[in-house]
Amino acid sequence: MSRPEIDGQRLTRELDALAAISEAPPPAVTRVVFTGADRRARAYVKGLCEEASFLVREDAVGNTFARWIGAEPELAPVGTGSHIDAIPNAGRYDGTVGVLGALEAMRALARAGYQPRRSIDLALFTSEEPTRFGIGCLGSRFLAGLLDESSGERLKGTDGRSLNEARAEAGFHGALSSVPLRKGAYSAFVELHIEQGPLLERSGTAIGVVTAIAAPASFRVIVEGEGGHAGAVLMPDRRDAFLAAAEIALTVESAARGTGSPDTVGTVGVCEVFPGAVNSVPSRARIEVDVRDIDLARRDAVLARIAAACDETGARRRVAVRIEPVNADPPARCAPAVIDAITSACAGRALSHERMTSRAYHDSLFMSRIAPTGMIFIPCRGGVSHRPDEFASPEAIADGAAVLADTLARLSA
Amino acid sequence: MSRPEIDGQRLTRELDALAAISEAPPPAVTRVVFTGADRRARAYVKGLCEEASFLVREDAVGNTFARWIGAEPELAPVGTGSHIDAIPNAGRYDGTVGVLGALEAMRALARAGYQPRRSIDLALFTSEEPTRFGIGCLGSRFLAGLLDESSGERLKGTDGRSLNEARAEAGFHGALSSVPLRKGAYSAFVELHIEQGPLLERSGTAIGVVTAIAAPASFRVIVEGEGGHAGAVLMPDRRDAFLAAAEIALTVESAARGTGSPDTVGTVGVCEVFPGAVNSVPSRARIEVDVRDIDLARRDAVLARIAAACDETGARRRVAVRIEPVNADPPARCAPAVIDAITSACAGRALSHERMTSRAYHDSLFMSRIAPTGMIFIPCRGGVSHRPDEFASPEAIADGAAVLADTLARLSA
Repeated sequence: MSRPEIDGQRLTRELDALAAISEAPPPAVTRVVFTGADRRARAYVKGLCEEASFLVREDAVGNTFARWIGAEPELAPVGTGSHIDAIPNAGRYDGTVGVLGALEAMRALARAGYQPRRSIDLALFTSEEPTRFGIGCLGSRFLAGLLDESSGERLKGTDGRSLNEARAEAGFHGALSSVPLRKGAYSAFVELHIEQGPLLERSGTAIGVVTAIAAPASFRVIVEGEGGHAGAVLMPDRRDAFLAAAEIALTVESAARGTGSPDTVGTVGVCEVFPGAVNSVPSRARIEVDVRDIDLARRDAVLARIAAACDETGARRRVAVRIEPVNADPPARCAPAVIDAITSACAGRALSHERMTSRAYHDSLFMSRIAPTGMIFIPCRGGVSHRPDEFASPEAIADGAAVLADTLARLSA
Repeated sequence: MSRPEIDGQRLTRELDALAAISEAPPPAVTRVVFTGADRRARAYVKGLCEEASFLVREDAVGNTFARWIGAEPELAPVGTGSHIDAIPNAGRYDGTVGVLGALEAMRALARAGYQPRRSIDLALFTSEEPTRFGIGCLGSRFLAGLLDESSGERLKGTDGRSLNEARAEAGFHGALSSVPLRKGAYSAFVELHIEQGPLLERSGTAIGVVTAIAAPASFRVIVEGEGGHAGAVLMPDRRDAFLAAAEIALTVESAARGTGSPDTVGTVGVCEVFPGAVNSVPSRARIEVDVRDIDLARRDAVLARIAAACDETGARRRVAVRIEPVNADPPARCAPAVIDAITSACAGRALSHERMTSRAYHDSLFMSRIAPTGMIFIPCRGGVSHRPDEFASPEAIADGAAVLADTLARLSA
């Protein structure tokens, strides 16, 4: 075959068209799973896949696969793909680059006359973002068998609708038990994604070769104290729920920094205070905490330090502190064969590259449970993500798609 | 005259009936100014006043006065009263005891054959609570001339409606400039109120004779940092707005405790975090702060310490911290003549009493600007207020009303 050439202009146009399918006005993108925007965006991507003559299949939870049938279709295919759902007021590159970039990589391979031996499967995963059902990577968790039918049926969305109601409304029926794939269902899986961090831009590197994906754990901390009139309750008598939550939030930060590793991050992104009046002592507070690391033992040590701080703060401030786990996934090591294929692809294109870890988690974290997995990162401006000003240059995206095309060619040959 | 006897059963029935006029189900009371519940409650109290043959007058901001005409109506009247608005999910005694208790005190005096020389005016003040317009004691501030027409016309409610629209909907028209009273408009003012603190109950004392009312100051702190993906932004690169707000909240507490005086209190009752997702670093946070003291210099020293902490935290965490003042009122000293009248009334009824300061602020804080003012406190269970389980016993309320009746008799003779 000739060398596959990415059509960067077409890819940019398609990313623009996808970004315009949003519940929020541009430049913001809001595309919560199974809402109108998500459903229109799925239809748009499916249309592009069918136009490229790939065979489209959807599973019961809405994971969508576009298959380029290989010369030996009985072999386990190579997988690629990402997600198109977006948190409220997000940007246009998170996830979408890994879906439309993979589609363009596959089209470029076809234009170059390549015929894969193994089939290549482009996956669009359902609800990578936790926005609606409180748990991220819903589709890939199901594929990896980490969510079973009964847990899935218990999931409720923020709008009160169950996962079963929401997927049925979006046209996805059938038993959730039909979703999981067997281990080895893919011979390899590789995901293209923006870095969502500042390292590639800082070092002026074109491609990040991901070697490990951080282990995310998230949980809620609920503090119950005692309310009262802000003027009348004496300071020593107070059992202020918010101040306890504030201390715990600061402990999340110090525990994450205290490991000394840049790979540990801890965040309190949500804080709610009740009754929430300027002249009332808070009787109740709720924070949501997210801790990640590529090292499971180190992450769990941070979790233990936070739990100890909850106990200590609760006892000292005479408030009840309760931890409600949301998830605690193990980290993933990327597969040497996939890392090597990506590295060779970078070398073949003379693109600068460096090995790095992914602190954000991705569907690849779960795909790694059933297939040798790797990720290709491209730089994004200022490391900014989950914001309307998220930006990756057309050149960076085309470079990433080219490396993905060459990687897919190596893995499917 | 014979000794005035409080009809405690009737007063309890009327308090029960008033508590039932609420937007929240019992035992909670929600009665935000000028909403349906507030308007129905006003009509109920007006009806009781008219039934008692007192002359009802309303001003442009909705302050309502029921006058018992004295033998020498040209003399400045004696004032009493409180408020009936209630924050969301509040209790049934805050304010209402001072309105219905005063009405029963006046009726008891009339039943006892008393004829006042000075008129006695029962006032129901508009919006003592800051719930809707962000500023407490709206009605009494206007009466004292501390809010002028143009500031009043700029006030916007939480529902986006202006004060002018809201009062017109509730049937209160006319220029706000007609509201202020001249200094000396009342010869004295006395307010009956639950303590909203634990001291009377702890010491087993029937009546608190208030000698000073704490000086409240409230302000908002807005922190602007930088958002980003909770997994991807490295800890040292973060400019987390919520963590800065958490530190400032803890400084409010330590600054208030640090004065060493039980009369200093500082509270953060409101905290909002944006964008408010578990996987996003907070880009913006807003807290609302309330600081009170009976000593103006000490309170202002606490405010200065908080302002310094805002600067220090902002610089260290590389976030922008902005303080928006809401109000900063001076404290009030109660008038010796009113304190003496209340003390004598307690002695006459053989009721235990102690001098105390009011840490909560009240309409009396503003009435003290135009009249010699005092307050009568009664115990409430556990010092609890601004909560559905707020409770004052019928006996305590009747004792307070009896002391108020005797005090009004002394001051109007």
